[in-house]
Amino acid sequence: MNNSTPIYVGIDGGGSKCSAMLFNAQGVVLSQGVAGSANAARDFSKTLRSVVESVQLALINAGYGTDHMRHLQVGAGLAGACVPSVNAQLKAWQHPFANFNVTSDLVTACYGAHAGKDGALLIVGTGSSAARMQNHKLKQFGGHGFILGDKGSGAWFGRAAVTSTLEALDGLIPLSDLHGMVLNKLNINGSADLVQTMINASPSQFTAFAPDIIELAQLNELTALNLVKEGAAYLDKLCLRTLHGTSLSLVLMGGLAPSIEPWFSPVLRERIIKAQAGPEWGAMRLLQTPQLMAC
Amino acid sequence: MNNSTPIYVGIDGGGSKCSAMLFNAQGVVLSQGVAGSANAARDFSKTLRSVVESVQLALINAGYGTDHMRHLQVGAGLAGACVPSVNAQLKAWQHPFANFNVTSDLVTACYGAHAGKDGALLIVGTGSSAARMQNHKLKQFGGHGFILGDKGSGAWFGRAAVTSTLEALDGLIPLSDLHGMVLNKLNINGSADLVQTMINASPSQFTAFAPDIIELAQLNELTALNLVKEGAAYLDKLCLRTLHGTSLSLVLMGGLAPSIEPWFSPVLRERIIKAQAGPEWGAMRLLQTPQLMAC
Repeated sequence: MNNSTPIYVGIDGGGSKCSAMLFNAQGVVLSQGVAGSANAARDFSKTLRSVVESVQLALINAGYGTDHMRHLQVGAGLAGACVPSVNAQLKAWQHPFANFNVTSDLVTACYGAHAGKDGALLIVGTGSSAARMQNHKLKQFGGHGFILGDKGSGAWFGRAAVTSTLEALDGLIPLSDLHGMVLNKLNINGSADLVQTMINASPSQFTAFAPDIIELAQLNELTALNLVKEGAAYLDKLCLRTLHGTSLSLVLMGGLAPSIEPWFSPVLRERIIKAQAGPEWGAMRLLQTPQLMAC
Repeated sequence: MNNSTPIYVGIDGGGSKCSAMLFNAQGVVLSQGVAGSANAARDFSKTLRSVVESVQLALINAGYGTDHMRHLQVGAGLAGACVPSVNAQLKAWQHPFANFNVTSDLVTACYGAHAGKDGALLIVGTGSSAARMQNHKLKQFGGHGFILGDKGSGAWFGRAAVTSTLEALDGLIPLSDLHGMVLNKLNINGSADLVQTMINASPSQFTAFAPDIIELAQLNELTALNLVKEGAAYLDKLCLRTLHGTSLSLVLMGGLAPSIEPWFSPVLRERIIKAQAGPEWGAMRLLQTPQLMAC
């Protein structure tokens, strides 16, 4: 690496993985490196390891030695990075790079999705949250995590299906195909086993039920249909709130986005466009305007 | 202590405390000892310490030395004791007593509430669950813990109020007095602070909001009213399911029982009676018929 040629890194880190991309000064992708989870609010030290490892892999994939880390300009969007106490820890990090700016993964995803222009975003995967970027200022709606929020997310769908299955096993509601799917997938048949299997399950373990729930709803299975309608109605309202009073377009991201989109209202669907660029690009570009990296 | 005089101990252990009572052979209470939490599924070693400590205190309060532990006949009802893996661990415990029989706190509470006769029980405090005892066989309904069930419990009410407050701060629903109460109680005013304060809160921290929620519902505050109606409707259905096809009476227990009872349907309310004896008495009596201590 010629140290006079600036190399930029954009990082997108979330609950499932951390992706780092190397860009040249013209914004052309040179390489990518992918490491483990990077939710800074859930596991801070693991997040720092994933960030460094993803950058090391990107350097190797571009043919550079990992000792070049200290010359890199790094911008990162990490899940949980805007939780105040976490943000303070991230700012205090003795990072191995030339420069390290960090904000929430929602900021960098929104900035990337609209190629640096104003726009709105809904992420619906393991979690759910929306945001809009206007005059380079981001405002977030929803989110709040598995315990307190994230309605309409994969984890929310999965937990709701398990809770409904327990109510059916209690005889409070009729046993339905949705409940049969939950029990079959785990290969168990009683309440006590179901509780023991899922009581400490992670959000992504709950999310594993989501594709089947949406498929059953598409087949008009009533219990699944009611869940999907409730989750989609919340997300629809969340997106309309995010877009309210603007003429912004909306990008959908996350593993559940394609299957939940058909359940949205026509008025929302006509605002949806495809993403212009990825979150790594957004992180790289925001790095160059660090005043925009605020939470 | 005259070792030829049998001394019986009944223990009631749950998320907040562990209570041990010494009884003579005629079932008369000799003393009580109270120690810390004893939810065997949540913290197993802490539970064993609380059990031993509560018995030691009961011995001291009755004027006996703690070295008499090895002569005691102990029956215990502990929260989480019927989770299969936990039950196996409890049975393998090298306890310091002459004899130690254990079952779930629900079994001993139900047995005590109806003085050893058939009957039903609803516990609604930090958690919620119901059970009926018929021909000395217990059948449980509901429960399932904070993440997957416990609807209508204090923790459920508190979490629902926090989630509703976050939706109001997102502008998805109007801000109400209920939301103002949540924010005032925590002395915070923004989403990020609310999430950071409550994201890792324990079920009992959520339960702290419950009395205020029910009070607001009594004053017809609409958001609180809808929550209390939803929680009470679930508990009503749960109790009617528990009583279904029987002529059993129902005892209500737990810190939230007195304030939730007025929200129950008339058909349920006419089945409610006062408790005949406490859960420690139930544990002591069940000890004498160990075949009934099954989960």
